[in-house]
Amino acid sequence: MASAHHNTSAWHSQQDIYDAEEYELLSHTNTDPNRPKYPDGSSIDWLREDASERSRLQQLRSQHGARGVLLPSLNAARMWIVVILTGAGIGIAGAWLDVLVRWLGDLREGRCTYGLFYNQAACCSGIDSGEICREWKTWSQFLNIRAIFAQSLLQSFVYVFLAIAFAGSAAVLVKTYAPYAFHTGIPEIKAILAGYVFDAFLSPWTLLIKALGLALAVASGLSLGKEGPLVHVSCCMAFLLSRFFKEFRHNEAQKRKLLAAAASAGVSVAFGSPLGGVLFGLEELDTFANDSDVIWRGFVASAIAAVSLQWVNPFGTDKLVLFQVTSNSDMWRAFELIPWLGLGIIGGVLGHLLIKLNVEAATLRRHSAINDWPILEVVAASALTATISYLIVFTRVQASELVANLFQECVPKKTDYHGLCNPTAMWENVFLLLLTAALKICFTAWTFGMNLPAGIFLPTIAIGACIGRAVGLLTQGLQRAYPTAWIFLACPPDPSARCVNPGFYAVIGASAMLGGVTRMTISLVVIVFELTGALSHVLPIMISIMTAKWVGDALGKHGIYPVWIAMRRYPWLPPVDYKDRGQTGASLMKPLSKLVVIEDGECTVHDLAGLVRRYDYHGFPVVNKGQLEGYATRENLRMAIDRALVDNPNEFGSRKCRFSSVQSEDHFDLKRTLESEVIQLRPGVPQELVVRIFQKLNLRQILFTQSGRLLGMVTKPDVVSLLTAHFPHTAALSAQLEMPYSSRVRES
Amino acid sequence: MASAHHNTSAWHSQQDIYDAEEYELLSHTNTDPNRPKYPDGSSIDWLREDASERSRLQQLRSQHGARGVLLPSLNAARMWIVVILTGAGIGIAGAWLDVLVRWLGDLREGRCTYGLFYNQAACCSGIDSGEICREWKTWSQFLNIRAIFAQSLLQSFVYVFLAIAFAGSAAVLVKTYAPYAFHTGIPEIKAILAGYVFDAFLSPWTLLIKALGLALAVASGLSLGKEGPLVHVSCCMAFLLSRFFKEFRHNEAQKRKLLAAAASAGVSVAFGSPLGGVLFGLEELDTFANDSDVIWRGFVASAIAAVSLQWVNPFGTDKLVLFQVTSNSDMWRAFELIPWLGLGIIGGVLGHLLIKLNVEAATLRRHSAINDWPILEVVAASALTATISYLIVFTRVQASELVANLFQECVPKKTDYHGLCNPTAMWENVFLLLLTAALKICFTAWTFGMNLPAGIFLPTIAIGACIGRAVGLLTQGLQRAYPTAWIFLACPPDPSARCVNPGFYAVIGASAMLGGVTRMTISLVVIVFELTGALSHVLPIMISIMTAKWVGDALGKHGIYPVWIAMRRYPWLPPVDYKDRGQTGASLMKPLSKLVVIEDGECTVHDLAGLVRRYDYHGFPVVNKGQLEGYATRENLRMAIDRALVDNPNEFGSRKCRFSSVQSEDHFDLKRTLESEVIQLRPGVPQELVVRIFQKLNLRQILFTQSGRLLGMVTKPDVVSLLTAHFPHTAALSAQLEMPYSSRVRES
Repeated sequence: MASAHHNTSAWHSQQDIYDAEEYELLSHTNTDPNRPKYPDGSSIDWLREDASERSRLQQLRSQHGARGVLLPSLNAARMWIVVILTGAGIGIAGAWLDVLVRWLGDLREGRCTYGLFYNQAACCSGIDSGEICREWKTWSQFLNIRAIFAQSLLQSFVYVFLAIAFAGSAAVLVKTYAPYAFHTGIPEIKAILAGYVFDAFLSPWTLLIKALGLALAVASGLSLGKEGPLVHVSCCMAFLLSRFFKEFRHNEAQKRKLLAAAASAGVSVAFGSPLGGVLFGLEELDTFANDSDVIWRGFVASAIAAVSLQWVNPFGTDKLVLFQVTSNSDMWRAFELIPWLGLGIIGGVLGHLLIKLNVEAATLRRHSAINDWPILEVVAASALTATISYLIVFTRVQASELVANLFQECVPKKTDYHGLCNPTAMWENVFLLLLTAALKICFTAWTFGMNLPAGIFLPTIAIGACIGRAVGLLTQGLQRAYPTAWIFLACPPDPSARCVNPGFYAVIGASAMLGGVTRMTISLVVIVFELTGALSHVLPIMISIMTAKWVGDALGKHGIYPVWIAMRRYPWLPPVDYKDRGQTGASLMKPLSKLVVIEDGECTVHDLAGLVRRYDYHGFPVVNKGQLEGYATRENLRMAIDRALVDNPNEFGSRKCRFSSVQSEDHFDLKRTLESEVIQLRPGVPQELVVRIFQKLNLRQILFTQSGRLLGMVTKPDVVSLLTAHFPHTAALSAQLEMPYSSRVRES
Repeated sequence: MASAHHNTSAWHSQQDIYDAEEYELLSHTNTDPNRPKYPDGSSIDWLREDASERSRLQQLRSQHGARGVLLPSLNAARMWIVVILTGAGIGIAGAWLDVLVRWLGDLREGRCTYGLFYNQAACCSGIDSGEICREWKTWSQFLNIRAIFAQSLLQSFVYVFLAIAFAGSAAVLVKTYAPYAFHTGIPEIKAILAGYVFDAFLSPWTLLIKALGLALAVASGLSLGKEGPLVHVSCCMAFLLSRFFKEFRHNEAQKRKLLAAAASAGVSVAFGSPLGGVLFGLEELDTFANDSDVIWRGFVASAIAAVSLQWVNPFGTDKLVLFQVTSNSDMWRAFELIPWLGLGIIGGVLGHLLIKLNVEAATLRRHSAINDWPILEVVAASALTATISYLIVFTRVQASELVANLFQECVPKKTDYHGLCNPTAMWENVFLLLLTAALKICFTAWTFGMNLPAGIFLPTIAIGACIGRAVGLLTQGLQRAYPTAWIFLACPPDPSARCVNPGFYAVIGASAMLGGVTRMTISLVVIVFELTGALSHVLPIMISIMTAKWVGDALGKHGIYPVWIAMRRYPWLPPVDYKDRGQTGASLMKPLSKLVVIEDGECTVHDLAGLVRRYDYHGFPVVNKGQLEGYATRENLRMAIDRALVDNPNEFGSRKCRFSSVQSEDHFDLKRTLESEVIQLRPGVPQELVVRIFQKLNLRQILFTQSGRLLGMVTKPDVVSLLTAHFPHTAALSAQLEMPYSSRVRES
């Protein structure tokens, strides 16, 4: 029991290393450049980061006079500066991306006679309503081709060719300059916010390529959306801005607080949904768990992003609402709950199907020759998508345009989108809509995961809107056929009066499909009605999302993002309420016999240097005759040993290392590398509690002791494997990205 | 070190006590009736409750055959049954409360000629629009009084008399039958959800009296609202329903999961805001911390409550939106941000002022003679309120009616509410509105805390709406006076065209005031626009709430609910991001020398019986020669000792007690009362981390050890005192309710 009171106040040991440079700290008011950084692929230690932030703040406060007041305030101001700049930046960037996509997309159909760089709407903006726009010409008009056959051949050729060109160049950009700019980015952001270190994912190059590639990919007409990638772009932006401030460069926890706000701002811009952004952060990114102020910063970032977006006003509508639902009546009738519940069930089933197909596609891609030819794959897929899409009226246009039209009510005097409002063509319309939905499911399942930026939100909305509109048309047809049936008695008796509004069924269908794919609840409701402005229908939207989630959860446990996280094997703990079946921590922990442990006072500096070289674990428990003394990270040990060996290898090399304070001259003092204030549990603690502690406190490891004796250790990856054990495709893709995770940074 | 491995797997020791009754458990499929209950005023131990739930579920699953599958599903179904029933129940109850309030309120003005039980709207519902309603008569019309002086005398007399009668009877009901039915209830619900035990607060009597008293109190015209109390009513309802199921009766954690969903449903009904309900639960009640499924259950309960409310349809409008904002244009102009920011600042300042006045009023009431005459106080306050209110046109009507009118836009052909739209009467209107706001601030500060059910939401909205409308009128006047000033260039050039909509300024003012008083952010935004339907104005609403919160937080740290919690000294941890200044757990903990500790194997059963009688701590650490063995709750010890002493006092009384398993015959075995799997920290851990662990894991105590030696303990009340130390009125009211907390259940 000699070690019982030797390190009672040494939690700050990590920081104490830098006391030597105190003069430097005071002059720079900041953290030590020598502080060991986390390599990409490791998990941060929230406790250590918090401790470092705390000691930095204390240093600021302890300055003399006005500096002691001013510096801490300046420090808080920096966080807000980055949050506000990120919000404004992503708002403006998002708006210009919209403009770019619009122009590129229109270019596939034709061009403006008086300037190539006008999109169709801008080109025709000068004319009076009702007049036909002669300034915008399709390519065949522009090239003065008269023969109908030649016209359609040229049009389709340009359409397919530009699709391939856009998608192909996006893929080349991604492959050449920023391999991490592909896919949606949300699984990675989730993992990063939970503590995964992956700085390459947020680099300025990724920012640039993801934004540019995203515009190209969306304009190519592939079945993908810009929503998820915008979150990634926003996070890259915050990361870039944070580089200008030392405290974010050196503190991973502070950086994550910024990123959480940035993610909210990204969603806010993607959907024109400031509230949805905050809630997305809260529910899907689970940022709330880290810090209660996160919600508040996300709120500010979201609002500022939305203001900037509205200020740039890319569509000239002065509105944030993207897919305004026009409806003359806010009323809905009780019988409509039946088709809406049906849509909820369909959404849950198809959502599960889409996830399953997507997983199959991803594993197939990974394990076949396609893996080596990502650009060719994109070219082939875009050629196929463009060719098939061109043939069907609903798939030819941009998905966003399709969705906007499907959400519209049929109003007598307005233009009728491709005969959707024609009651005599009901069956044709239903067939076409279902065909579109089926095609889009197949395309999306393959596209989401290809080597270019791709979000899954918009395709999902499009699929759901098609199915919803189809169900709406069927319900409307039924009501018109049997207007006197008791179930339709709530409708006005006049058979020509409108009762069922299929446009709103499309909204419900889209919500249900989103619910099935993402398994979000409240943030989805807010996003949907901020997207559509259908506040009066918030209840049916809630009910359909509820149903879809229930059905989806019954079929498969996770939404699309956790599935991708599991496939990539990021160290991310799903916020599930894990229930053990009587197991204790003892069955989860690596027992002492399998741990690499440093015996205090027994091994020499040379031994330790060998240990550090041989094992790439994150750190090692330090014991003294079985009693736990603390935990020393590999990085800290390495730095201390390297210094000693550089100074005087002969003198220090053969000395015994001492972590406790009882020392003699011939021992090498490593007390400062030891983190002695660790959380200890007894091995009999239920597994459930161990998992909960990891989830809530964002720990990296827990040491198990009994009466002070070290018995074992559980690390975050152990808990992740426990929670993803039931998923068959776990780690199916983890080697593809050449993550250092599985090979190099096994945490001890 | 003899004790090093004797209790490695005994976490379930709490449960093992009941193994003796296993046959009983199997036949009842349920928990032991002898399980010690928590007395009111104590804090639950979440870990223990979870452990008990876990072992119960395991028991269910381990049943043979179909029972092993069926029983767990049935168990999950029970939770949903209660959630759904509570949602439906509170929806219907809320709707009927609305009807009752409407009728009682109208009764103060007059009555329906063909039936006393019709309110004004129902009475006049048959007639065509435009026609004057002759069925509804004021009291002077009804009694055929012609003289104008007598008319107004009678009207004002009835008005004041009924106000006193309603408020007085509410106070009598509360005082006589359910003393806990007073006030808003939200502080208590917050504390209960965080683990405080207060079953009397949720009793069926409280349910009944709170609902009835609420209707009376609101109808009396006192400055109070029904929103907060409805949350309390909803929780009472869930509590009542949960009594029918054993697992909720016996498990405090499970019960709280239900209550969280019920609270969401209550807000959903109070504001007609299903989404706001979920978010309120999330943000204000901080329910998310306990269980990630809570959001999902709250979502379902909220939706069902709103559906039931809409189904009963108390106002005959088929809408959930209470204060529909009518606006012809969704546009707002950039210059309007200036007055809106101003409103945000005013909201923050006045919110802080209202909290301060309310605290002063509460402490004054507590420490003066008023404390002994609660009913007289209510009568006097209602007489004063009614008399003054009757004199001013804006205060005479129900606050909800006032707010609805203040939110309206001035549309030429519609009725003009008390000349608010008359541009020549601008200064009179502004004066009247500001006077109304000032009066309402004073009334509210006093009323909120009197001996009857009273919420603070509606009065706050009314105050804010008055100020907002006044600012709107001023802005409008300025714009009309200087239509060509550069700042107003965004307005249409025609000076008669509408540009500034003062109705919307009222919404902004209300949001800002709510932000200042409650300090909520995102849930408030959602509630406001679900209340008003002003989705297009979500950005200005967000900005004003943001500003109000910023200003308010700068003036005083907490919103009104945490302030009341602190005054009542409930063991509730604010979800703040506590930062220490270098202190460690050692400075927070009670050191070993001040703890009552049981020395294993040293004291006799009689000693222990005396210990249990003498100290009313929650439990005692058990040590063996300084080494920590575990923790034994007083309740468990008492039960074990009582049994032994009843069986054979002479034989057992003088035996030594043994908690570890190394025993001889002459020891009394208390192993099963010991919880050995406790979380241990070293005393050097930063205070910040200790606080965070309490916040996140909802613990009751943490034991501090070093190398297995017990050094001290921190309990939840210690952490609460630490976090509320800066608030001057902490515990100012704690004795008033005669809470057992401070006297009886000091946690050891």
